[in-house]
Amino acid sequence: MTTLAPEISVSQWFNTPESPTLKSLRGRPILLHTFQMLCPGCILHAIPLIQNVQRVFGKTDLAILGLHTVFEHHAAMKPVSLQAFIHEFKINYPVGVDEAGDPGPMPITMETYRLRGTPSTVLINRKGEMAASSFGHLDEMTLGATLQSLISESQE
Amino acid sequence: MTTLAPEISVSQWFNTPESPTLKSLRGRPILLHTFQMLCPGCILHAIPLIQNVQRVFGKTDLAILGLHTVFEHHAAMKPVSLQAFIHEFKINYPVGVDEAGDPGPMPITMETYRLRGTPSTVLINRKGEMAASSFGHLDEMTLGATLQSLISESQE
Amino acid sequence: MTTLAPEISVSQWFNTPESPTLKSLRGRPILLHTFQMLCPGCILHAIPLIQNVQRVFGKTDLAILGLHTVFEHHAAMKPVSLQAFIHEFKINYPVGVDEAGDPGPMPITMETYRLRGTPSTVLINRKGEMAASSFGHLDEMTLGATLQSLISESQE
Amino acid sequence: MTTLAPEISVSQWFNTPESPTLKSLRGRPILLHTFQMLCPGCILHAIPLIQNVQRVFGKTDLAILGLHTVFEHHAAMKPVSLQAFIHEFKINYPVGVDEAGDPGPMPITMETYRLRGTPSTVLINRKGEMAASSFGHLDEMTLGATLQSLISESQE
Repeated sequence: MTTLAPEISVSQWFNTPESPTLKSLRGRPILLHTFQMLCPGCILHAIPLIQNVQRVFGKTDLAILGLHTVFEHHAAMKPVSLQAFIHEFKINYPVGVDEAGDPGPMPITMETYRLRGTPSTVLINRKGEMAASSFGHLDEMTLGATLQSLISESQE
Repeated sequence: MTTLAPEISVSQWFNTPESPTLKSLRGRPILLHTFQMLCPGCILHAIPLIQNVQRVFGKTDLAILGLHTVFEHHAAMKPVSLQAFIHEFKINYPVGVDEAGDPGPMPITMETYRLRGTPSTVLINRKGEMAASSFGHLDEMTLGATLQSLISESQE
Repeated sequence: MTTLAPEISVSQWFNTPESPTLKSLRGRPILLHTFQMLCPGCILHAIPLIQNVQRVFGKTDLAILGLHTVFEHHAAMKPVSLQAFIHEFKINYPVGVDEAGDPGPMPITMETYRLRGTPSTVLINRKGEMAASSFGHLDEMTLGATLQSLISESQE
Repeated sequence: MTTLAPEISVSQWFNTPESPTLKSLRGRPILLHTFQMLCPGCILHAIPLIQNVQRVFGKTDLAILGLHTVFEHHAAMKPVSLQAFIHEFKINYPVGVDEAGDPGPMPITMETYRLRGTPSTVLINRKGEMAASSFGHLDEMTLGATLQSLISESQE
């Protein structure tokens, strides 16, 4: 038996009028992409990769969610800075701000998912179960194959 | 009703003791990669792409076949030159020499498949039917997704 | 007759205990690199280029100065954010904050030099004269040749 | 005292009606670029680099000479194959075939210059003296600076 992926905790959303939750997206495969706006690996590799996912899988029902998981330099990456970053890098998928942890520096979703840093990629299947979680660089072809597998799965 | 992909015509094989045919590979998905050893797009893009396919899908039953479809500069790309090319570029999947056409410059398989040039990529499904045929540059992520779809299909 | 390059106006420095001025660097060739921390072309191309200049010309007397010329999204790119950016992107040449203009959004040095945007590159020769000013992407080989010319010039 | 770079031995030229020699080019700086048409590092890195040298230094009097130094797979890289290679890769600087050695596999110029493999780059100054000789990958910016130095030297 597999358990459901835990719900995400988001304090503010960009690029969406709604507040998406994993539960509201149940039935669709989800790519949850966590990043920090000042993380070089995120800017140089992960965000272009996710934007390519949008291009390749844009006609499927894959849901793409960005999550800004700030765990260092908090004062440097406040929402006002993130908003300009999203604009300048032409990011148009929904991006949430991971809710601040208390008292530690780690935000809540990052802590819940035990992510090791940024960028991280979490894949959730149509049933709401965690299918994969990885930290760091992902290969384009491998990600293409993995997403296709998730999309091809029937919900049941 | 879909018809079977036509058989390939090969005058000489490298990297395989056998002489693979589409018929002998029936039941497996096949990637047929056509190239010329002096074609810049083949060297710079297509061959590295196919080698990445090997890496990503190496544990599946996908069959990869290279086909040297020489339609120009015939004297420059004889099998003795191809053999050195295969060695130097560390190509280790089976590579066949497309059988010379007569009287035209186009080799037989290239003519049969009406390929427009090199590199071309032909995908054949488990039932032996042509699933796709494309000329030129392919995107890594898209190819990853397409191959995963072919691999996931049951033979029925 | 050539005139001296106008002095830069900097409100705060990072990576240097002193406050360099063009006058204090007179006699050395100077590369003045202007950027914004949320400008994609700066992050993806210009900053790696300048870091390569450091590597290639590190044993010469070329002076490299970064200048953060914020002309949009001011609230998003305050010094506290710049400081984290410098840390995360491992920038270790001196970086100054271009002094805020009043009342317009353009900072003073950017205005004085009539720069069109970020990234821009200004080259100043040993005599303190402006040798070149360009906006946008620079070719590695061309910049290598141009800097070598500046370095080879005698101060006279 | 520096000695003159030894003369090159060429059995056949492409892309030039004349037969250039180092002596006939005396007074100009020379970039001698040695390669093999089936050497991956030559195709992927060195030839694009030399073509960029052409673009950047095309208005100077720098002389660029390619030299096909075949020391392995001789039957695979005969002049008829080289000619098609030059055409396909759009090489338009003069390319000579290094004269075959006897009895060994190493051609004469490669042996004379004691080159270790392909690609190699030999730089010769205006006086005909060897300024540099290197094997393998070269950095764009460093090569730009080095060539600018050679070009700036007076012949005296």
